[in-house]
Amino acid sequence: MISSEFDTIAAISTPLGEGGIGIIRISGKEAISIANRIFQSSKGVNLLVVKTHTIHYGFIIDPETGQKIDEVLVTVMRAPNTYTREDVVEINCHGGYVTLKRILDLVISQGARLAEPGEFTKRAFLRGRIDLSQAESVIDLIRAKTEQAQKIALEHLSGRLSKKINELRDSLMRVCAHVEAYIDFPEEDIDGLTQEEIQTEINRIKEEINKLIEGYEEGKIYMEGLRAAIVGKPNVGKSSLLNALLMKDRAIVTEIPGTTRDIIEEYVNIKGMPLKIVDTAGIREAHDLVEAEGIKRTLRAVELAQLVLLVLDSSRPIDSLDEEIINRVIHKKIIVVINKKDIKSKEFCLPEVLKDKPRVEISALKGEGIEELKELIFNTTISGKYEQEGVVITKMRHKIALENALQALNNALQSFKEKEPLEITAMFLREALSFLGQIVGVVTTEDILNLIFSEFCIGK
Amino acid sequence: MISSEFDTIAAISTPLGEGGIGIIRISGKEAISIANRIFQSSKGVNLLVVKTHTIHYGFIIDPETGQKIDEVLVTVMRAPNTYTREDVVEINCHGGYVTLKRILDLVISQGARLAEPGEFTKRAFLRGRIDLSQAESVIDLIRAKTEQAQKIALEHLSGRLSKKINELRDSLMRVCAHVEAYIDFPEEDIDGLTQEEIQTEINRIKEEINKLIEGYEEGKIYMEGLRAAIVGKPNVGKSSLLNALLMKDRAIVTEIPGTTRDIIEEYVNIKGMPLKIVDTAGIREAHDLVEAEGIKRTLRAVELAQLVLLVLDSSRPIDSLDEEIINRVIHKKIIVVINKKDIKSKEFCLPEVLKDKPRVEISALKGEGIEELKELIFNTTISGKYEQEGVVITKMRHKIALENALQALNNALQSFKEKEPLEITAMFLREALSFLGQIVGVVTTEDILNLIFSEFCIGK
Repeated sequence: MISSEFDTIAAISTPLGEGGIGIIRISGKEAISIANRIFQSSKGVNLLVVKTHTIHYGFIIDPETGQKIDEVLVTVMRAPNTYTREDVVEINCHGGYVTLKRILDLVISQGARLAEPGEFTKRAFLRGRIDLSQAESVIDLIRAKTEQAQKIALEHLSGRLSKKINELRDSLMRVCAHVEAYIDFPEEDIDGLTQEEIQTEINRIKEEINKLIEGYEEGKIYMEGLRAAIVGKPNVGKSSLLNALLMKDRAIVTEIPGTTRDIIEEYVNIKGMPLKIVDTAGIREAHDLVEAEGIKRTLRAVELAQLVLLVLDSSRPIDSLDEEIINRVIHKKIIVVINKKDIKSKEFCLPEVLKDKPRVEISALKGEGIEELKELIFNTTISGKYEQEGVVITKMRHKIALENALQALNNALQSFKEKEPLEITAMFLREALSFLGQIVGVVTTEDILNLIFSEFCIGK
Repeated sequence: MISSEFDTIAAISTPLGEGGIGIIRISGKEAISIANRIFQSSKGVNLLVVKTHTIHYGFIIDPETGQKIDEVLVTVMRAPNTYTREDVVEINCHGGYVTLKRILDLVISQGARLAEPGEFTKRAFLRGRIDLSQAESVIDLIRAKTEQAQKIALEHLSGRLSKKINELRDSLMRVCAHVEAYIDFPEEDIDGLTQEEIQTEINRIKEEINKLIEGYEEGKIYMEGLRAAIVGKPNVGKSSLLNALLMKDRAIVTEIPGTTRDIIEEYVNIKGMPLKIVDTAGIREAHDLVEAEGIKRTLRAVELAQLVLLVLDSSRPIDSLDEEIINRVIHKKIIVVINKKDIKSKEFCLPEVLKDKPRVEISALKGEGIEELKELIFNTTISGKYEQEGVVITKMRHKIALENALQALNNALQSFKEKEPLEITAMFLREALSFLGQIVGVVTTEDILNLIFSEFCIGK
């Protein structure tokens, strides 16, 4: 798949919007010559002969019309020490869409092709600078919502997951070699593992894979956040709770590009875990809503949520509306938030059905009990896999590959125990190896790559 | 005001949002040493001793914890050949807010100060790299909505307006010198201008200033766009007209950062002039609205508009609702858009009050007459000052300075004609010079600078 005949690609690599600096990135064989044709250095510099990793001041000029397009800095980086391992030019121009678009159009008119989403990173993979799991982590790094998520993504980019997977592959390869040796020389006692030792080693590998699979839910939550709904009848303090949660630890990102305008999401940073409160608009408007509409909204929010924060007003006895709401959410993962603890009534009595649910007493208005609530949210969600293992998977694709590998290992063990021909065992072991190889991209197809990189933003 | 003791400033210079690349810019004496303390080169490079305008691969590391923050490229540019004429470092990291924020926090913890909006450009001015009118054009360049606007901004940045102003200042300085020579040596016939020639020269300068002032409206429209309202009773084809206008020439920027979510603006590119259609949401929903609400919306849109596109349905006779709307908009600048020309009724008759207004017949649905309408919008708005003069002012601040200069020149002429002491004339001439000097920043105050640069985005 690695081809030296990749064409030259270009894209705007900075986010759209108002900013001081915008960057057009060009990668490929023609990158430097294309840039040179539209660049006029103030010192008469010829980009074709400048040293690698140098930056040059001048103007972008339309070679057809001679018109100045912008005052820029052009960075020239020659293969192979670049992001893509190809020649890379970055045109650092004034921010603003019109300028960026004009320069990009010019670059394309000179022979570059508009890059597809993630195509620069795809080339970094195809040219062997990083493996596939590293390439995938780039988009996590960009989209990370908390420091913890950013840290996990950077670890993946630095190869921590790859290292783990490659260790497993090495172990498995060794097992495979022994099994295949038995096939070829069944009589000889090759200086290797006994049959028992082989089974033990396969079980050890299975256990490691299992740990990775078990960490997925947690890894995914660090990356994507946990969707939570704040639910309760009118005036129990949903809005105050939302504000109390947002007050100190409003997550770093409150608006996610690409979400539609009428869904407003807020992130709360719970010890590095992004908690995404669904339908915050509904919560804020709830006091204007008639009861029926309120319940409709609640149900919609509950449906979307992975965790329900069920708010009860402890200054009053539970009434039938509370009970109706409780019935509607009882099938979900719930934390019971007993609000207004400072004016708790003797008549308030926690319904039997909630007694085994985790709960916390708070005063949303006074900000009391909020830290305990956060602790509870964190502890009921995060089991500490990442802390224990130091590596955690975050992608469905990796989880599926690991599950497939596990299944193949089970099949291998079974065939081994049942004394099937060793060729069968070896085949299953090879299959497991291949599934592990999918994660780091040793084994891959164009379709998988397209799927992975289509998730990226353009320009990366 | 130029001080060598500026502190070191830093900011995120790329727009917020999802993008492949983000940049932290640092400027000042400590820029390189700060970067060096948090940068670990893979080749062991020491940024303190690298050549200027070189770029280096490595990691940003928190020196306190040793934690890796990101994989980056660091550009080192040494004074004076930099944006600010100070040492500048740009840290080119993965896009995404968390990464950018963490690196910025680290840079600040190492002794940089968060830059104010426009502070990098302000330093470029204070250190004499560009004059004030050039500095001001940077934000126009970033915000430009059409190629024409971007071109005008770049011309200003390149010094075209400065050149014009400086020519006027030179001429005026020469006049001043002659007048002051008369004061000192009233008897001598200095090899200079006669009194008549001095008046002629002042009049010539006045005329040049006048031309610049006259171009302001046009320059402003190129930069900010002309706000237009599409107005008419239900079912005359407002929505179809909007779509027909947007169809081919939807302006490059349709959403302007910073606008609130419930006001939707659309820009149409009319020969390089951005036409901003106000209340497009209202137009699109108009068919759902009851009449009274429709009229209320119309009035609000009309109030905001600089140009009203009054749409009439020529397939039916004018009725009382048309007449009511006409009455409400007749005081504004109007273009009459006679729609449905393909099924024009004989009973349709243009109301007397509209007969002297510019008008065009179209079929919005068939897209006929749209080019003529655009031509008409352009011609009734743009008088061609920019084309004629090759330079146009776009800022209220410049217009006011020019008007003040003009007034001072009038006072000078009058005092000259009325044979007042030449000292008075000279004083007025000096005043005019000072007003012209404000534009390019020869004469300025901290307050004016703060006002100008507070408009900028952070990081520029």
